[in-house]
Amino acid sequence: MGEKSDTYKVVIQLSSNELLVQKATISQLNNILNALPSVSIELVMNGPGIDLILKDAFLINTLEQLSEKGIQFMVCKNSLNYKNMDHNSILPFCKIVPSALAHLVVRQHEGWSYIKAGF
Amino acid sequence: MGEKSDTYKVVIQLSSNELLVQKATISQLNNILNALPSVSIELVMNGPGIDLILKDAFLINTLEQLSEKGIQFMVCKNSLNYKNMDHNSILPFCKIVPSALAHLVVRQHEGWSYIKAGF
Amino acid sequence: MGEKSDTYKVVIQLSSNELLVQKATISQLNNILNALPSVSIELVMNGPGIDLILKDAFLINTLEQLSEKGIQFMVCKNSLNYKNMDHNSILPFCKIVPSALAHLVVRQHEGWSYIKAGF
Repeated sequence: MGEKSDTYKVVIQLSSNELLVQKATISQLNNILNALPSVSIELVMNGPGIDLILKDAFLINTLEQLSEKGIQFMVCKNSLNYKNMDHNSILPFCKIVPSALAHLVVRQHEGWSYIKAGF
Repeated sequence: MGEKSDTYKVVIQLSSNELLVQKATISQLNNILNALPSVSIELVMNGPGIDLILKDAFLINTLEQLSEKGIQFMVCKNSLNYKNMDHNSILPFCKIVPSALAHLVVRQHEGWSYIKAGF
Repeated sequence: MGEKSDTYKVVIQLSSNELLVQKATISQLNNILNALPSVSIELVMNGPGIDLILKDAFLINTLEQLSEKGIQFMVCKNSLNYKNMDHNSILPFCKIVPSALAHLVVRQHEGWSYIKAGF
């Protein structure tokens, strides 16, 4: 592991709205940041996973703290459309990508690592 | 995302026979094709995931359309053996690979992106 | 697939303690070894997945055989801490990594393939 940690980049895919999965994912984000302080992390949410960052989400404070630490929250536009939602429905620090799956393909093509959240 | 989209390649692993997972996966295949029209996609099925392409599958028409759009359906021979099935049991446009997991290792080694289907 | 198989390396993430998932993962490890005899495999366990290699695990003999075939079993220290466990709680041939997730990021950065276990 002789690489410089500041070159590490990872997309993490969250597709579940199960509370245990969402809480575990948040713990894991903090664990990665602690182990690799200069890592770039994008949490890419699609399907039921987008529930994490709806404005009525109960983990808002935790998510805001992660956003302030530099973690990017990316939401799938296809998944928002499916729920008849748009940028007004989600937390303001989140970004919308046209297709979460395509984004995951492109990022890995660019050299980012990939991890699927959940059990 | 300045890369040319015609260089994108992705293996998607489907290991579940849950109906919600299978329907979501099919939607995602279409979403990726719409976002990255020249992408190469292989849907690699193992374990219970192979139920998607058995001849009595009820999504046959949808799968045929995806096959005509260029998506490759790859089935794990180990998983077929486990069910005492062979090429006669699966839809004719599917290909059999000796080991789905080994195929996923080799494809990533060749530069393909990887996505795990499911929640 | 013209690459030499002895260059293949894969990290497999196991996050589940469901018996079906754990048994399927063990089968898959053997399937990969059979298909790619010179592959390097690390099974990286985090969260409930670490139950696989606790000392009272009932699959000990099978795991020992896989260890003798060269498969590395890597356990997340964060997950052990969460259960108030340490190296005394796990099978002796397992290694502890400070963060399973960070390890998966680093390994992919180094060129290893990644597979998420489970359905």
